[in-house]
Amino acid sequence: MFPVSRLVRELESRGVDTLVDGAHAPGMLPLDLGALRPAAYTGNLHKWVCAPKGAAFLWVREDKQAELQPAVISHGNNTPRPGFSPFQDRFDWAGTFDPTAWFCVGRAIDFMGKLLPGGWVELRRRNHQLAVRARRLLCESLNVPSPCPERLLGSMATLPLPEPFQGRPKAGKLDAEQLLLYDQFGIEVPFVRLGAPERRWVRVSAQIYNSLADYEYLARALKEVE
Amino acid sequence: MFPVSRLVRELESRGVDTLVDGAHAPGMLPLDLGALRPAAYTGNLHKWVCAPKGAAFLWVREDKQAELQPAVISHGNNTPRPGFSPFQDRFDWAGTFDPTAWFCVGRAIDFMGKLLPGGWVELRRRNHQLAVRARRLLCESLNVPSPCPERLLGSMATLPLPEPFQGRPKAGKLDAEQLLLYDQFGIEVPFVRLGAPERRWVRVSAQIYNSLADYEYLARALKEVE
Repeated sequence: MFPVSRLVRELESRGVDTLVDGAHAPGMLPLDLGALRPAAYTGNLHKWVCAPKGAAFLWVREDKQAELQPAVISHGNNTPRPGFSPFQDRFDWAGTFDPTAWFCVGRAIDFMGKLLPGGWVELRRRNHQLAVRARRLLCESLNVPSPCPERLLGSMATLPLPEPFQGRPKAGKLDAEQLLLYDQFGIEVPFVRLGAPERRWVRVSAQIYNSLADYEYLARALKEVE
Repeated sequence: MFPVSRLVRELESRGVDTLVDGAHAPGMLPLDLGALRPAAYTGNLHKWVCAPKGAAFLWVREDKQAELQPAVISHGNNTPRPGFSPFQDRFDWAGTFDPTAWFCVGRAIDFMGKLLPGGWVELRRRNHQLAVRARRLLCESLNVPSPCPERLLGSMATLPLPEPFQGRPKAGKLDAEQLLLYDQFGIEVPFVRLGAPERRWVRVSAQIYNSLADYEYLARALKEVE
C-alpha cells in the first residue's frame, strides 16, 4: 500500500495534480474519495468488488471536470441529457458496448458486504489477515525474505521466487513454471520480473474463497516446478 | 443500400481513402472485403449476425495498417506477440474488458447460417423480402409514399410517419409516441428526425424471428398513437 493521501497532499502543495491508479483499491481498502479528493482517481470493480470484467470507474474532482476530454468522443459530447453533467455526457457512452458489467456493480457491493456478519470491514480485515499469513507461510516454506513490512500489505503480497527460479530467461508471454502450475496443479498465479538486475517474483491474493491451505498447496507446487 | 464498391473505386481514383461505416452490412449483405478493399471498413456483429453487443470489427487494408494508431494505446503497443501483426498488437487489447462478445462471433455466424436450408444466402434473401413486404404494407396502410426503390433495400426500411406525427416538437430523448408504442403495445421501433424542413421517419427491420404479422400490428398501433 502507498500513502496515497499524503502523496496527493504533498504534490498538491507543489502545484502538481495527481491521477491515482487505484486499480486494486476498491474493495481492498477503505476508499473515501470525498476525503482523498485527488485531481482524478480510477479504480477497477472486477477485482476486489467481484463485479464482472469491464466494471471500473473514473472519478474526477469537480474543478477538473471541465478541462477533461475522453480519448474517444461519441454521442454524449453533443447531446446533453437532462439530469446529467457535461462530464457524464462526454464520458459515459463512447460507443456501442455491453454495459451489463456496470449494472452489476451495486449488486456486487451488496452481495460481498453480506458474506460476513461484519460486512465489508470484516471482509477486508479477514482478507488482509489471510494475505499476511499466506506471505509468512510462503516466505518460510520457500526460504525467501519478506520484501516489506506487514503493515504495508492489503489483501495481496508479492514475494521473491526462490533462487532456482532466478536468472532463467523469459520464453513466451507466460513463464514456463507458470504454465506448469496451471496445467499440473490447477493454480493460476501471476509471476512478474522486476528490478535491475532483474528478479522474479510471485504475487498471491487473498479473497474470501481462499484459505491458508491454498497457499500451502502453492508452496508445495512451487517446490515441484522449481 | 449504397453502391459502396463504386464509391470506393471512384474516390480511390481521385486519391481519396475511404473508411466504410458498414455498421449494418455484415449479415445483411454479402460482404467480401477481399474484393471491396477500401482503406478501412468497420462493421457491427451484434446487429444482423446476432452476436452479443460489443462484437464488432475494424478491417484495415495491409498498406494502411502501419500508419494507423488506436485512440487509446495500451499493452500491445510495446509488447509484440509471436504470430500477431503489429497492427493486431496495437489494436486488440486497449484495456481490461470482457471479450466474451468477441468469442461468440464464430458461433453466431455458424448458428445463424444453419437456421434455414439455404444458409446465409437464404436468410439474407428471406429478410430482404420480408422488409420489402413490410414496407409495402406499412406505406399502404399509413398512406405514405415509398422514399426509395425496393432494390435499394437490405433487411431494413425507413418510411415517413403519417402527417399527424409531423411537426410535433421533440420532448425528450425518445419521442412520446415511441414510448406509447413500447408501453402500450410492446413495440420497440426507432423514430428519427431528418431533413430540412425536418420530417419524422420510422425504421423497421426484418430478422428471421419476424413475420408480416408484426408489421400489421405496428401499422394498427401507429394509427392508435398518432
